[in-house]
Amino acid sequence: MDDQPMRQEHDLIGDREVPADVYWGVHSLRALENFPITGIPIAQSPYLVEALAAVKEAAATANHELGLLDDERFRAIRDACEEIRGGALTDQFVVDVIQGGAGTSTNMNANEVIANRALELLGREKGDYAYLHPNEHVNLSQSTNDVYPTAIKIAVILATKSLLEAMEVLEESFARKATEFHDVLKMGRTQLQDAVPMTLGQEFRTYSLMIAEDRARLSEAVMLLHEINLGATAIGTQLNAPAGYVQSACSHLAEITNLPLVPAIDLIEATQDCGAFVQLSGTLKRVAVKLSKMCNDLRLLSSGPRAGLNEINLPAVQAGSSIMPGKVNPVIPEVVNQVAFQIIGHDVTVSMAAESGQLQLNAFEPVICYSLSAGLARLREAILVLARRCVDGITANRELLRAEVANSIGLVTALNPYIGYQAATEVAKEALASGRGVAELVLERGLLPPERLEEILRPESLANLAPRPEPPHVDE
Amino acid sequence: MDDQPMRQEHDLIGDREVPADVYWGVHSLRALENFPITGIPIAQSPYLVEALAAVKEAAATANHELGLLDDERFRAIRDACEEIRGGALTDQFVVDVIQGGAGTSTNMNANEVIANRALELLGREKGDYAYLHPNEHVNLSQSTNDVYPTAIKIAVILATKSLLEAMEVLEESFARKATEFHDVLKMGRTQLQDAVPMTLGQEFRTYSLMIAEDRARLSEAVMLLHEINLGATAIGTQLNAPAGYVQSACSHLAEITNLPLVPAIDLIEATQDCGAFVQLSGTLKRVAVKLSKMCNDLRLLSSGPRAGLNEINLPAVQAGSSIMPGKVNPVIPEVVNQVAFQIIGHDVTVSMAAESGQLQLNAFEPVICYSLSAGLARLREAILVLARRCVDGITANRELLRAEVANSIGLVTALNPYIGYQAATEVAKEALASGRGVAELVLERGLLPPERLEEILRPESLANLAPRPEPPHVDE
Amino acid sequence: MDDQPMRQEHDLIGDREVPADVYWGVHSLRALENFPITGIPIAQSPYLVEALAAVKEAAATANHELGLLDDERFRAIRDACEEIRGGALTDQFVVDVIQGGAGTSTNMNANEVIANRALELLGREKGDYAYLHPNEHVNLSQSTNDVYPTAIKIAVILATKSLLEAMEVLEESFARKATEFHDVLKMGRTQLQDAVPMTLGQEFRTYSLMIAEDRARLSEAVMLLHEINLGATAIGTQLNAPAGYVQSACSHLAEITNLPLVPAIDLIEATQDCGAFVQLSGTLKRVAVKLSKMCNDLRLLSSGPRAGLNEINLPAVQAGSSIMPGKVNPVIPEVVNQVAFQIIGHDVTVSMAAESGQLQLNAFEPVICYSLSAGLARLREAILVLARRCVDGITANRELLRAEVANSIGLVTALNPYIGYQAATEVAKEALASGRGVAELVLERGLLPPERLEEILRPESLANLAPRPEPPHVDE
Amino acid sequence: MDDQPMRQEHDLIGDREVPADVYWGVHSLRALENFPITGIPIAQSPYLVEALAAVKEAAATANHELGLLDDERFRAIRDACEEIRGGALTDQFVVDVIQGGAGTSTNMNANEVIANRALELLGREKGDYAYLHPNEHVNLSQSTNDVYPTAIKIAVILATKSLLEAMEVLEESFARKATEFHDVLKMGRTQLQDAVPMTLGQEFRTYSLMIAEDRARLSEAVMLLHEINLGATAIGTQLNAPAGYVQSACSHLAEITNLPLVPAIDLIEATQDCGAFVQLSGTLKRVAVKLSKMCNDLRLLSSGPRAGLNEINLPAVQAGSSIMPGKVNPVIPEVVNQVAFQIIGHDVTVSMAAESGQLQLNAFEPVICYSLSAGLARLREAILVLARRCVDGITANRELLRAEVANSIGLVTALNPYIGYQAATEVAKEALASGRGVAELVLERGLLPPERLEEILRPESLANLAPRPEPPHVDE
Repeated sequence: MDDQPMRQEHDLIGDREVPADVYWGVHSLRALENFPITGIPIAQSPYLVEALAAVKEAAATANHELGLLDDERFRAIRDACEEIRGGALTDQFVVDVIQGGAGTSTNMNANEVIANRALELLGREKGDYAYLHPNEHVNLSQSTNDVYPTAIKIAVILATKSLLEAMEVLEESFARKATEFHDVLKMGRTQLQDAVPMTLGQEFRTYSLMIAEDRARLSEAVMLLHEINLGATAIGTQLNAPAGYVQSACSHLAEITNLPLVPAIDLIEATQDCGAFVQLSGTLKRVAVKLSKMCNDLRLLSSGPRAGLNEINLPAVQAGSSIMPGKVNPVIPEVVNQVAFQIIGHDVTVSMAAESGQLQLNAFEPVICYSLSAGLARLREAILVLARRCVDGITANRELLRAEVANSIGLVTALNPYIGYQAATEVAKEALASGRGVAELVLERGLLPPERLEEILRPESLANLAPRPEPPHVDE
Repeated sequence: MDDQPMRQEHDLIGDREVPADVYWGVHSLRALENFPITGIPIAQSPYLVEALAAVKEAAATANHELGLLDDERFRAIRDACEEIRGGALTDQFVVDVIQGGAGTSTNMNANEVIANRALELLGREKGDYAYLHPNEHVNLSQSTNDVYPTAIKIAVILATKSLLEAMEVLEESFARKATEFHDVLKMGRTQLQDAVPMTLGQEFRTYSLMIAEDRARLSEAVMLLHEINLGATAIGTQLNAPAGYVQSACSHLAEITNLPLVPAIDLIEATQDCGAFVQLSGTLKRVAVKLSKMCNDLRLLSSGPRAGLNEINLPAVQAGSSIMPGKVNPVIPEVVNQVAFQIIGHDVTVSMAAESGQLQLNAFEPVICYSLSAGLARLREAILVLARRCVDGITANRELLRAEVANSIGLVTALNPYIGYQAATEVAKEALASGRGVAELVLERGLLPPERLEEILRPESLANLAPRPEPPHVDE
Repeated sequence: MDDQPMRQEHDLIGDREVPADVYWGVHSLRALENFPITGIPIAQSPYLVEALAAVKEAAATANHELGLLDDERFRAIRDACEEIRGGALTDQFVVDVIQGGAGTSTNMNANEVIANRALELLGREKGDYAYLHPNEHVNLSQSTNDVYPTAIKIAVILATKSLLEAMEVLEESFARKATEFHDVLKMGRTQLQDAVPMTLGQEFRTYSLMIAEDRARLSEAVMLLHEINLGATAIGTQLNAPAGYVQSACSHLAEITNLPLVPAIDLIEATQDCGAFVQLSGTLKRVAVKLSKMCNDLRLLSSGPRAGLNEINLPAVQAGSSIMPGKVNPVIPEVVNQVAFQIIGHDVTVSMAAESGQLQLNAFEPVICYSLSAGLARLREAILVLARRCVDGITANRELLRAEVANSIGLVTALNPYIGYQAATEVAKEALASGRGVAELVLERGLLPPERLEEILRPESLANLAPRPEPPHVDE
Repeated sequence: MDDQPMRQEHDLIGDREVPADVYWGVHSLRALENFPITGIPIAQSPYLVEALAAVKEAAATANHELGLLDDERFRAIRDACEEIRGGALTDQFVVDVIQGGAGTSTNMNANEVIANRALELLGREKGDYAYLHPNEHVNLSQSTNDVYPTAIKIAVILATKSLLEAMEVLEESFARKATEFHDVLKMGRTQLQDAVPMTLGQEFRTYSLMIAEDRARLSEAVMLLHEINLGATAIGTQLNAPAGYVQSACSHLAEITNLPLVPAIDLIEATQDCGAFVQLSGTLKRVAVKLSKMCNDLRLLSSGPRAGLNEINLPAVQAGSSIMPGKVNPVIPEVVNQVAFQIIGHDVTVSMAAESGQLQLNAFEPVICYSLSAGLARLREAILVLARRCVDGITANRELLRAEVANSIGLVTALNPYIGYQAATEVAKEALASGRGVAELVLERGLLPPERLEEILRPESLANLAPRPEPPHVDE
């Protein structure tokens, strides 16, 4: 360590040495010392690194176009950014994901890495900032306060798109099961009590539809993030950004990222507002809430094998117990539940961080970015294992389900329109007390003729797969 | 009490007496005994009572149309519902807002009140259910599981509309202040540190825009609630609802409420799904988060009067202290903050309630309804007092604000493009250490000629209200 | 209304008329106008009204003792306070539970009511403040900032004690059931999968113990609230409180309330600190979390009656459905779940309110007080109905439970020490695939002699109610 | 990759190959495939790895003592455990921190690593489970359901102790500043409005005391975790654990870890209960809430340098802005705020995970463990940087603070006892309107003689550092 070659750098606080071969510089070094919080560097957020490089490239292009940056420096900066976007130098993004300073350290880390790589491309030494400077050139016309929010918006957009793809996979898995189980009659339940018949296909179709709706909501929410404040500079007044820069930088960024980004209508508002993140977080929480509910259902329906509902079988993906031989547990839904609980907790973190912003800036965007990014990535992974390692392999215990219906007291509900709620209640009470069947009791009491009863209790009718017999009209 | 005339009623559990003159019956009585939780009856949720009556009227109309309900009973039920929608009998809605049973007690309370009022209108005794029955007639073709979600959706829609109106009032209050303060130059701040100049008008315009955006988001979110599951009955299979009922009941309900209600595409999914409530709650939380941030800012900007920022004055609406004479406190923003904290907490409640739904029904909709309704109503009140008793009366300390800018070190940022970040940093450091002014130091160091400096530091330019001088180009 | 006799009052803002017959005055009037938020007056928090009167009485007694208040005024104030503590004039506490001003309006409401009642007792007119003044006499040596936190601490202590009593009732209900079911063998479940045998008594004993532990934690947490800041005045420096006042006022208050109250060691810290409320809220949340878990279990164990676990029966306390005849739902556990969700949400509200305190005071104590008070009161009610209307009436389906065990594959776990995990796994797999019983397969495979097997599978051994046969030792 | 030597392993699902040189086996492999969630292996939780090895060593020791494990295997297992506790093989703990299965994968990962290392120590091949088996020998008398909760309790205890040490450092930093600033007079503020005088030392002493109190609470909460369920096996009935095992294993574990661990009184309750985790999480949240409040204060007090309160200076630890030269931001308090927001969010996650436990086990302990561990570790780091890089270097702007007091209207409060609240109010109003000083106006109005006024306004008296002049008594 002692012999490691070093280079000297300088900032507001004073002089410091950094290893000669690293691309980051003194600002990153300060951040490393100031924020040893999670041990998770932003390098582990590849979408964020990619987004930072895209923003820097767009800014350089606009600066060049507007005559503020010469050809040589522009090309070097652009090439450095493109390398980073291609996956190079990711390990040089060393600052912690949780940091003070409203993202300044992340922005400076990017400025330093790009400047040093650009210097290298120009055949110069790293640290030769007199020629190409992290602030004067790479950060030209920019502030952390516009670069960072823009970059984290792009990172979150990319992560959301990736999650949306996973959701589509799961939606289709459920849809295929809905088709497979379209004729499997079972008891529906309300409040965990036997209610009225339905099919297992209907049950799974519900999950498929829920995910489709959630995809729609998430797609709407992510659109709000496409409104960016690049060019706002420090507080939105565009101080130090030349005329024309806002439009130019944004349109280059849209092109580079292939995303329909637009400048915010009011850059002062946009610079301090975290509304779009709160909205996305709230919508992500909705996805988590519903997914957790589905997983609760899957665990419940597969409970057993003998002292549970035992309606469906989840595929065995690992031995369930270190002590109970042969036990298979619903481990995949369980992991999804846990990711959902994390996301619901993250939403509180995001809300508090957003609420705590003061005046012209929210200093707590790093934790907003991390909470959203971690949630989006984890949910994507959880959803994919849910689809592929659980839902796709689910099987139904058809005989048991059919017997459940035949044996059910809930059937009596279907008789309401024909024998009335009061009479039906009497039948239900006797069935419950005696353990006997509903149909048997209805016939015994002469409440309906056998053919009529059979017609009413036809499985297809019960589950609304076929028309039901007409109830008596008032003029009958 | 002993001599109070009573009437006898009967349910699944057995016989019970209720006071002869009340419109509610045995089911409501059981609920009163089972749920003595908050002491807040649903009567205190007028939108919910109104919505219940509307749903019952729509159902009766559809049943009548489809030949299931005769003219006489229909008219009596309809007239009873219209009276209730007009505000009558609200005090008869006695069950607690927090109740088990997925809303069954609320639905039965409505069925009983309507049945007894209808009986009365027909010249019959209350309790003469053999003629007109709460279940057999008022609840005909219905289940709690479709009536209740539909009614709470309507109630929440009405409350949201009312909140949206209040938000518009506040938006306009802020907008008027933005105009009033359009030329009041001040320092912008990031991370509570002096940043660069702006106007107080820009600051207030931000708040106005934030509310406008939030109104847009809330308007979108409330649209999702217009998709209802009326006709789904117990679990969405429409068991016991006659063919044609879903469309008929929904279109009558749309007409009665004057809301663009539509039947959900999949009634099974719609019966168990709480996604629309979670979405609204998340969006309401967003409104609360941002409003709380604004109120934090107002409290900060009005801090003082002598040892604070003292930029603006909130109108004095009450004496501030029982001990400190003359003290005036920001009591209105403070109450808004507290309502916001409640709403953010409610969002967790709603999320947990939604997540805990099982299989074909969510049994926890009452707490979802109450949390949303209370939040919506309180936020409306809080916003109106904020607009009328606070924002409308805000005044600015113009001289102090202007001096703040003149005195600021942050001005140096504006010189970056002309003298460079490094030189600007040196000036800033000396200004901070010496207590001297930035302009003075720039001139002393000969960094810019006086006219150029004056031009750059023109207030209008700084705040982006007028074009700024061109920065040097690379070819200069 | 026009002819209602009025009296004129005056405050910092100016002159206002209040109805001549009310005990509250101009400060309360301002608060009514400023805070029309929830419609819930502090009158609905009887513990708070009681606590306010106790604090005022203690302060007056100390002031009298220290020579700051003459005999006549002291006696009148004291008598007014005692009347209020006895339940009189509660309806005069009109300000909203959610208010800005850090409780100033609540404190002034108390000062005004007490002053006017004292004046009345002295044979004077209401409003004759020249003789006895809400601030100068009733609030003497006090500030809202010490009176209000002290009063809400006492109110919360009283509500917590009341909750603790209810918890004891529930603990005993569960304990009685544990005894009743001590010999009911059943399958234990982990991750909703059949695990190994236990008794229903063990299951209910767990709930009883959980509540006992929660009572212990809550009792510890509430002790922290007994440290009060009375005498701190505005910020804790005791400005305007005479020497000796802190000790005197606190000891009188302890006597009046019969609570072991002590002055905080550092009054500046105590005046701004909300830690004790956060601690209580967190502990209350713990109670809610565990109670909700128990209710989830009760609902699950009573699911059915035919297509569920159907292990226990909850007493029917109301008809379960408006459409499904004979259906009985777990409405009591459901209402407890919902109260728990509210409390978990309130905890977020309390945390945010506490976190938002600034410098020498937390302005958001009203919402902290309301959230805690509402939660404590509702949980008390919910727990009492749970004990009396649900747990006390639970019955077990003993035959079904015993068959469950006999039929279980989980039995194989008990054979591990005798036949090894690998062999046991093979038996389990075959049992699952074939539907056959574990014992049968073990015998068929000759893994254990019949007597040994029977000994191992003795129900009492399985449930750990009797010693188990020795497993083979390494030297065997 | 193709040529990597592999070994074959077998589990309930079938045969699989794992790399020949890894210590983990087929169960870990399944987990790697099933839970690719966060990318964070449990190897990154060193306290957990250490705790797992300690538990396994204690279990082996008890098994050996009770004659269930022979000398040779025992010694090999023990030695493997000690190596791991010493830091070896950490990288072999590969399963994801977020996993389904209630920790089974973590337990099996430990069983496999220990078995293979023990085999190696015995001179055998990895995978030679016929001789020494992960389940039969390493997991002997154990279940995931007792091992895992015990291990995560120990891991959380260790992390909490480490946090407590950091808190003590911060407490002392604040205490030193309290001493340093003991004579720095300043204005106290309530609701951000100027209130009455105090010293900066009093302000910092408050923070020191708050942390001391929080340390006490956290120390209490962590004690609850010392009650463990080792020996409970699957559901607490101790099935497959020999007589005497519970006491023996626990006492060995206490010795190995040097922690006062005790067996839970009821092992069935202890196996499913997450109360101790919820309590710790709630208390940790309290720490976070208060620390965030302190950091809010530090940021506010150091706001400026010219358009803020500017009372104190935080040390500059990095350049504040990529665009604003010379700007220094409160980056350390900001990072602490963000960690606090995470912890407050985690508390919701923990609550939901605990609430979702069902029947005899909570399957969601992995997310509870991760949330707590991450929060504890991050808060420790954040607190240390706060102490060392922020608080220790804070300086006060003494002149400005003194002028603030002299200039304050809040001084008038001190005159209340001598001139009355009404007269004081008039003075305050005029001071505010005219911009003049309080003392000047009091003298002009002849309300007090100059010497008396001076005596009352002596700084030491105001801040309660010296006795105050006697107020007039009622008999004067």
